[in-house]
Amino acid sequence: MSEPPAPPPGGMQRPIGVFDSGVGGLTVLRALRAALPAESFLYLGDTARLPYGTKSEHTVARYALQAADELVERGIKCLVVACNTASAAALPALQQRFGELPVVGVIEPGARAACAASHSGRIAVLATESTVRAGAYTRAIARLRPDAEVRAIACALFVALAEEGWTEGAVARAAAERYLAPLRMAEAAAPDTIVLGCTHFPVLQAVIAAAAGEHVRIVDSAATSAAQVRSQLAARGLLLPAGAVPAGVRFLATDAVSRFAAVGGRFLGAPIAADDVELIDL
Amino acid sequence: MSEPPAPPPGGMQRPIGVFDSGVGGLTVLRALRAALPAESFLYLGDTARLPYGTKSEHTVARYALQAADELVERGIKCLVVACNTASAAALPALQQRFGELPVVGVIEPGARAACAASHSGRIAVLATESTVRAGAYTRAIARLRPDAEVRAIACALFVALAEEGWTEGAVARAAAERYLAPLRMAEAAAPDTIVLGCTHFPVLQAVIAAAAGEHVRIVDSAATSAAQVRSQLAARGLLLPAGAVPAGVRFLATDAVSRFAAVGGRFLGAPIAADDVELIDL
Repeated sequence: MSEPPAPPPGGMQRPIGVFDSGVGGLTVLRALRAALPAESFLYLGDTARLPYGTKSEHTVARYALQAADELVERGIKCLVVACNTASAAALPALQQRFGELPVVGVIEPGARAACAASHSGRIAVLATESTVRAGAYTRAIARLRPDAEVRAIACALFVALAEEGWTEGAVARAAAERYLAPLRMAEAAAPDTIVLGCTHFPVLQAVIAAAAGEHVRIVDSAATSAAQVRSQLAARGLLLPAGAVPAGVRFLATDAVSRFAAVGGRFLGAPIAADDVELIDL
Repeated sequence: MSEPPAPPPGGMQRPIGVFDSGVGGLTVLRALRAALPAESFLYLGDTARLPYGTKSEHTVARYALQAADELVERGIKCLVVACNTASAAALPALQQRFGELPVVGVIEPGARAACAASHSGRIAVLATESTVRAGAYTRAIARLRPDAEVRAIACALFVALAEEGWTEGAVARAAAERYLAPLRMAEAAAPDTIVLGCTHFPVLQAVIAAAAGEHVRIVDSAATSAAQVRSQLAARGLLLPAGAVPAGVRFLATDAVSRFAAVGGRFLGAPIAADDVELIDL
């Protein structure tokens, strides 16, 4: 790996960089915008190489470092790895590479949200194949709550359902029931909390909740990640004052710009104009 | 683009090269092995960059040329592009690049199978987003049968269902019903033939057939592609005699070798040992 790029100078006016394999991280951007309305954002979706969730840890780490370099070169004040798979594969390497720059992943915040929500300590993690295999959630939860019982379920089809926009209806319901079937057990042994360990999954929250049953709480990383970004920026004096006029959001994608705009709006909860998305090569 | 690689010398003993974005092309390899039992094969799955079906035509074409170069450098006597998306994006470029080498895609054989099967000329194509957008099937069918009425439906979720191994059951049934709903119309207007325009889809043939109704014929590219490979090799005197002892099949993958072996077996219809899969970088 080459030397990290030298970031251009700049202060608190710089945008917050957000990186994901594609459009899923827009659910995190949505929470960041809600929590930090004065800030501007630069979002990079590595759409040419998505999905990361079925790729090896080594490959995902390499992709994540390339994407992070691109954002750092463009001048950001904080890097949010809004992709669970990339957080699991590359967060320590990214934190080491960029030294002073705050780098926030989504796994530790997700684990924190799950531990705060769970009474029994029995927590289920729904994630991609790669995140489950990396075991990052299980370790992060165990660090926060050593008595927790964690079971992780790989839910690859949820990514495709979210991208297709099939977030309700018979297909989504049947998929949620099938993935969650192993959790339907005697109440004394069943998890009381499910953490959505993939940024695609919040758009499926309603069908997941229905399949899980009414006593199960569903949490995700988005709000707790945004809170962590806020506190890290505040600690460094990089938080813009609440009244500042934000410069808005710019988008970078490595492929299929018009698809990014069309599908991404569902995840961001607001329309994205194709003209606001710049095609880049990593 | 650089100059094409100079293939090593060799005659009819060389393997047939088969290229796909991942494991879907193994359904084509299965048909090739059945049709050409004396031949050996070299299969390349570009698993690091799958899926191709949601990527732009330009990107897919670039990937396809890289993969083809790798196979040609290793010495093949014929190249099969066992991926509809790559066939749509890159077949003419590949045929031009490699001159003498026979290069066979799957779209023209699929179109041929559909035209042969259809009485009414009303044909539905189920494919990935990218293949549908490229319009390659519609054009290929129109060339063979100018009076045909073709409707193409992008079925992204079928790829995920096939990869997950959910080829039957409630989720696959509901997905097939949802994608095929636009085809459920008065018999006088309904298609009588469906062509599976993605190499992942043959493993879902039973649920697709059930959703389509009993009067609809389902065809795919695999058998007709294999027949085309046979005739091209025979025309060049490169077909091994029927009694020859095949050297077998070797696999190359650009990522996640153990997943390739585990998931691939379902598509090939025979187990794949992880030791038989070589990890390569393109």
